[in-house]
Amino acid sequence: MKAVRVHEYDQQPTLDEVPTPTLQGPHDVIVRVEGAGVCRTDLHIIEGQWQNKSGVRLPYTIGHENAGTVTEIGSAVTNVAVGDKVILHPLATCGLCHACRSGDDVHCTASDFPGIDTEGGMAEYLRTSARSVVKLDPSLAPADVAALADAGLTAYHAARKAAEILRPGQTVAVIGAGGLGHIGIQVLKALTAARIVVVDRSPAALQLAEEIGADVTVVADGTEAEQVLELTDGAGAEAVLDFVGEGTAIAAGVAMLRRAGSYYVIGYGGNLDIPTIDVISTEINFVGNLVGTYNDLVELMALAAEGRVHLHTVKYPFSDFRKALDDLHHGRVRGRAVLVPDTDPVAIT
Amino acid sequence: MKAVRVHEYDQQPTLDEVPTPTLQGPHDVIVRVEGAGVCRTDLHIIEGQWQNKSGVRLPYTIGHENAGTVTEIGSAVTNVAVGDKVILHPLATCGLCHACRSGDDVHCTASDFPGIDTEGGMAEYLRTSARSVVKLDPSLAPADVAALADAGLTAYHAARKAAEILRPGQTVAVIGAGGLGHIGIQVLKALTAARIVVVDRSPAALQLAEEIGADVTVVADGTEAEQVLELTDGAGAEAVLDFVGEGTAIAAGVAMLRRAGSYYVIGYGGNLDIPTIDVISTEINFVGNLVGTYNDLVELMALAAEGRVHLHTVKYPFSDFRKALDDLHHGRVRGRAVLVPDTDPVAIT
Amino acid sequence: MKAVRVHEYDQQPTLDEVPTPTLQGPHDVIVRVEGAGVCRTDLHIIEGQWQNKSGVRLPYTIGHENAGTVTEIGSAVTNVAVGDKVILHPLATCGLCHACRSGDDVHCTASDFPGIDTEGGMAEYLRTSARSVVKLDPSLAPADVAALADAGLTAYHAARKAAEILRPGQTVAVIGAGGLGHIGIQVLKALTAARIVVVDRSPAALQLAEEIGADVTVVADGTEAEQVLELTDGAGAEAVLDFVGEGTAIAAGVAMLRRAGSYYVIGYGGNLDIPTIDVISTEINFVGNLVGTYNDLVELMALAAEGRVHLHTVKYPFSDFRKALDDLHHGRVRGRAVLVPDTDPVAIT
Amino acid sequence: MKAVRVHEYDQQPTLDEVPTPTLQGPHDVIVRVEGAGVCRTDLHIIEGQWQNKSGVRLPYTIGHENAGTVTEIGSAVTNVAVGDKVILHPLATCGLCHACRSGDDVHCTASDFPGIDTEGGMAEYLRTSARSVVKLDPSLAPADVAALADAGLTAYHAARKAAEILRPGQTVAVIGAGGLGHIGIQVLKALTAARIVVVDRSPAALQLAEEIGADVTVVADGTEAEQVLELTDGAGAEAVLDFVGEGTAIAAGVAMLRRAGSYYVIGYGGNLDIPTIDVISTEINFVGNLVGTYNDLVELMALAAEGRVHLHTVKYPFSDFRKALDDLHHGRVRGRAVLVPDTDPVAIT
Repeated sequence: MKAVRVHEYDQQPTLDEVPTPTLQGPHDVIVRVEGAGVCRTDLHIIEGQWQNKSGVRLPYTIGHENAGTVTEIGSAVTNVAVGDKVILHPLATCGLCHACRSGDDVHCTASDFPGIDTEGGMAEYLRTSARSVVKLDPSLAPADVAALADAGLTAYHAARKAAEILRPGQTVAVIGAGGLGHIGIQVLKALTAARIVVVDRSPAALQLAEEIGADVTVVADGTEAEQVLELTDGAGAEAVLDFVGEGTAIAAGVAMLRRAGSYYVIGYGGNLDIPTIDVISTEINFVGNLVGTYNDLVELMALAAEGRVHLHTVKYPFSDFRKALDDLHHGRVRGRAVLVPDTDPVAIT
Repeated sequence: MKAVRVHEYDQQPTLDEVPTPTLQGPHDVIVRVEGAGVCRTDLHIIEGQWQNKSGVRLPYTIGHENAGTVTEIGSAVTNVAVGDKVILHPLATCGLCHACRSGDDVHCTASDFPGIDTEGGMAEYLRTSARSVVKLDPSLAPADVAALADAGLTAYHAARKAAEILRPGQTVAVIGAGGLGHIGIQVLKALTAARIVVVDRSPAALQLAEEIGADVTVVADGTEAEQVLELTDGAGAEAVLDFVGEGTAIAAGVAMLRRAGSYYVIGYGGNLDIPTIDVISTEINFVGNLVGTYNDLVELMALAAEGRVHLHTVKYPFSDFRKALDDLHHGRVRGRAVLVPDTDPVAIT
Repeated sequence: MKAVRVHEYDQQPTLDEVPTPTLQGPHDVIVRVEGAGVCRTDLHIIEGQWQNKSGVRLPYTIGHENAGTVTEIGSAVTNVAVGDKVILHPLATCGLCHACRSGDDVHCTASDFPGIDTEGGMAEYLRTSARSVVKLDPSLAPADVAALADAGLTAYHAARKAAEILRPGQTVAVIGAGGLGHIGIQVLKALTAARIVVVDRSPAALQLAEEIGADVTVVADGTEAEQVLELTDGAGAEAVLDFVGEGTAIAAGVAMLRRAGSYYVIGYGGNLDIPTIDVISTEINFVGNLVGTYNDLVELMALAAEGRVHLHTVKYPFSDFRKALDDLHHGRVRGRAVLVPDTDPVAIT
Repeated sequence: MKAVRVHEYDQQPTLDEVPTPTLQGPHDVIVRVEGAGVCRTDLHIIEGQWQNKSGVRLPYTIGHENAGTVTEIGSAVTNVAVGDKVILHPLATCGLCHACRSGDDVHCTASDFPGIDTEGGMAEYLRTSARSVVKLDPSLAPADVAALADAGLTAYHAARKAAEILRPGQTVAVIGAGGLGHIGIQVLKALTAARIVVVDRSPAALQLAEEIGADVTVVADGTEAEQVLELTDGAGAEAVLDFVGEGTAIAAGVAMLRRAGSYYVIGYGGNLDIPTIDVISTEINFVGNLVGTYNDLVELMALAAEGRVHLHTVKYPFSDFRKALDDLHHGRVRGRAVLVPDTDPVAIT
């Protein structure tokens, strides 16, 4: 089969002919890849930024946001059947460690991360584990949801946790209405009746935010904390979801948080830098967020099937992977780029 | 190897020579059985009461409370190693269904129950799954904890849930200070600072209850609800753990429950029969309890290793299994009967 | 002022001239009543059914679902001001007992229940406590929301608790699409993305249920449990909200509940009568529900202000209270009857 | 009556004759002060550090950790009676705001803080509110528990929150075995079966920690994080309670925290300064902690009555308040200093 493989860092990956994967264990699942998200992380991998972190040996196949159709299953696989459409959780977890046994499988102590530290999904077929595959509702096309598998799942995870503490009449502030933020807004709209205030520098992003569920939008012009305080009678938002995590966003976000409120850290780059006296005198909380669990992905796909969460995608034939990477690199992709099989009759949108 | 097998219902099981189990899949674990609890359920199986429920085909090996030493592991097993002492969760779960992915593996939709519906542990060796084995602290002898694997785990599960709602100064009433009740009392003592009131018909059982953690004991003489109400200034207990579940225990238990309190159903036999007007006007809850999860068993073994939970056991050499069953049948076992290898230098206590 | 007073049981109440209430303590609030719900409980009070329960001394003023405008406040009142529109929580709670200090004020050990055990709100003015009044959004008319103060609040309370355990892709079954059920459906729609299946005997009620949020409706024709099981691949609903609580509803409701699911008891009349073996083998829970807390009412009013919860009301001028009671008695009220001041320019709908 | 009053900042307070307080409202409670904790905050008040924060007008009576006997109650007081021994929650809360109605009364938007911003308890009598007084078990002497009212309550609050996430076999690290830390250790011992690892620079403090419940102690010599990691097989502690909050404690504390663990900020002085990449990649949480709620104080007093929490106190006759302040200032108080009535036959220990 064909696969997009990195042979050397800082070199373009190439389309190689490699052996089609086969079943090797009873929990193995072979998936025909029908959507492979193209992500900024792929650019970073090619540049070598993940070389030490992942420890992967070159050459290998990239691609960590995958969906497709099951073509073969091992003897112990009970959750999917041949012919099922599936999306793949980014981690292949062990099912045996304490985290896995708690439903908190993201913290599995023995997981693989296909496309990062082992063979990924920018290929015609992918071998994965029964523990990674989530069966899709028949109404969902793999190519339409593939790019929700990682970043979208992270946004779902954080928004779901925030929704658990939000009540009608309360306020949640979303900082950053970019890719993750858009998913987060849609998830909040589906899961909570609280008022959603979206903060971003870009008026265009805020306009889109309003179309997908923001109740109020606030331009991040340096006065955003004051604006959110004013919207909440001076008290602040019960929850802040920070999809930026750097620059002035953090200080502004903390300033717009209510006493006893919770600040969900999702974006990264900067530092949380808060005097402990401020943490204790207002009794605020900071909540870290990594990617969602397997069950989070099940739930996100339920929302997608009901049309409550929608991701704008731009599809590229698999053999045009270099154009997809190039367009992403040059900021020419609106929404998310997804590779689809050359032979699929997918309208390139 | 030798195994205790049921060939026909209402006939004594026999000690058969059967093939020693071998690894068949990557998650398989072979355990040398060093403790096999002898349980009233074994008597019921032999009498044929489980024939229709389990659907098991005769002959087969009984024994569903097992602990021992790992002798072989499959290629994908990461949580135990050869030589580890382990206790076995009663269910071998799939790790793939929604319940398993939530940490609620007791509701696995594709589990086996060795000793009930498949080959059990009254044998020299048992093949089980990596998902069933909990590694024991080196200080614990398999024969001492084997009988905690099922009934003890149920008591832990219910007591742990109750402990989550109990605060210092509050009261939990435990109805029934028998085998499960004794474990429940010890678990409550370890997990909560609430006052533990134990109710039983038997003064001897209550005396033992006091030795292991009961703060107050109440003889169930028909006035037990009044006595608990009096102990709580007329308000009742925040939680009631009912290890009896039949006869007058339920009515008395509900009568001693505080407004907004929770009633944990563990014992069974009778009916919950409560006017809905009483349920809503006092806003009480009834909480069902099956056996504990895998992580519950991990936690119970942590308490056992610290000496906080102790089970009185009577050990029988494996070849004396008929005497063990017979003693149990005639009420001659104080605590729990456990089969141990004939060759182990275990003091019979 | 004028007030509707019961002088003798089984006799029609009369419109009496009584002293207008005045402030007596620092937490007192005087409210001009602009909406007084007329409830089936009022009929029961007149018939004497509450005589022993409430212990109230005749004559007294009935009316326990009240909203209006604040006309006077005591010196310690900080949560409302003169001129504020308010709805009254049905209980005037002490603020000092353990339940009040936990936010669980419904279980206050020293509360009054105006209209039941003390002077109620079918009057021109009502003296209440600062702890009862919830300030209304300016967009809400007291007469439109008054009838949500008791029954609607109960439905909110139960639906809010159920929403806490429901996730996208899961199913909640609502049994009974009458007055409370309709509020419950709207609340579930606002608070959860789970699928809402509504069960009722009446096709007309089900049609209305679909208009306000039901995703699927099921006619209760004796096969409702089977239908819900079929809708859930044989597994059942994660939560069942039972607004009926009598007759065959309970058995059907339990039969449609998933393993480890929760059954919310709201309606009453019949008995929960369940073998304990069924409770433990499926590990199901029964959750009692009384009226909601003060904060529940705050949240319900937030939903009402956003137009997410709407109650159909029929308004009667205050002096027509006998017609309102009579229409209710003879089943001639569609939605809820509400008394409004004779002088208010309210369109009778 | 006599009262210790501050007349000018940076001057010693004086013992003044002032009017004995009288009931002014229905919720007022007059308490004869039998124990008034002397706290470092009192020194700071005298030095003027609180001048701007509290906005209090001089002269006024200090003392914010009080316990004694009720001598008079207002007409609406139902939770205590004349003659009851009580401890006072540090805040006199409104009972009306959203926080008060949620049981989260520490975030009351209209509270007084006697001894800080209004008349305090270094006096013969104190007027307080029914919402502040917690009735003591008859076995408890007010002078013995008074100093738990503020700092001890803070330690209880944080330890109680941590206990909610801790399971048998898990590890909690306590950083700082000083005054608050000692209470925290005792509370953890009462509320959780998790292993308690205590970290402090002082071997003497660690020895005392072992006597009151520490399972393991670690000298904070720069390698404390490594030591805790080693104790936990490299994984770290599920919870870290940081009673220091400054210097190297924070970096060490974060380094000893397990993935998905929670860090409870209690001490203050330094900054939380953590790269957001570390917060998200390990998915850790930071939890702020202010003083406990009223119900927290009820629970702490239940533990005190059972002898599970004990505070070492040094008692001074009321008229020796200057010596108490002076001893505290010069580090001559082991445990906590408490003022007791000159006429009480209290052994000075």
